[in-house]
Amino acid sequence: MEQRHFALSVKVVVRDGQGRVLLIRRSMASKNNKGKWDLPGGKVDAGEDFDEALLREVAEETGLGISLDRVAGAAESDLPERTVAYLVMEGRRLSGEVRLSSEHDDFAWVPPGDLPTMDVCPQFRAVLESCASRGEEPAAG
Amino acid sequence: MEQRHFALSVKVVVRDGQGRVLLIRRSMASKNNKGKWDLPGGKVDAGEDFDEALLREVAEETGLGISLDRVAGAAESDLPERTVAYLVMEGRRLSGEVRLSSEHDDFAWVPPGDLPTMDVCPQFRAVLESCASRGEEPAAG
Repeated sequence: MEQRHFALSVKVVVRDGQGRVLLIRRSMASKNNKGKWDLPGGKVDAGEDFDEALLREVAEETGLGISLDRVAGAAESDLPERTVAYLVMEGRRLSGEVRLSSEHDDFAWVPPGDLPTMDVCPQFRAVLESCASRGEEPAAG
Repeated sequence: MEQRHFALSVKVVVRDGQGRVLLIRRSMASKNNKGKWDLPGGKVDAGEDFDEALLREVAEETGLGISLDRVAGAAESDLPERTVAYLVMEGRRLSGEVRLSSEHDDFAWVPPGDLPTMDVCPQFRAVLESCASRGEEPAAG
């Protein structure tokens, strides 16, 4: 039996001081899930700690400095050549205003109750619904 | 504000042909959770793919060859110096009989319905309860 190959990706549910969640929209040039709302994050490079990788990806994709506070959940998506396993963290915006890279063409700070109405990448629907059901949790401090 | 430091650990819910789940018991010499039932797995070394790390840890801790089939969930536990973030996979026994290393002193193949009765490491209670609620899923093939 052939071993299925998995790749690790780390993503983060970033909240602002009002408890809203940052979503970024994949550009129409994306290979997968074009035009769908996504979470910031990406793959962990060889030899890189996952939390450093996530902070780096968030800075590249959004220009924000964030904290990482806890594990929010896990997800997976099947691509033709491999399966991506996602570890999803939860964090808070510490500094900066959103500036997108060319990979994304829009962003939104979404109140948790509105998350189920957004056309998100299907692999993150469950973790975002669990965020929505926990409701508004304004950042401490 | 100080960044919290996270370390990644990968674990696996291994099922046998009858759908039972493999638990291994942490020895009384363990630093944390001594005597509690654990899942096989461990940390990912620098530069190592997480799926290869998990297959290596399972071979070292149990002597089994397994498949990795899907993502089962995520968990976290707070240690004094860092927080461990767990990605939990699900897989099947392919080959071998259980032979423990010195880190564990017992093992059990547990029918899913009995999982809630086991004294497991607290961070894995939720993911194991979700396995229990899905019930027996005999391995295909």
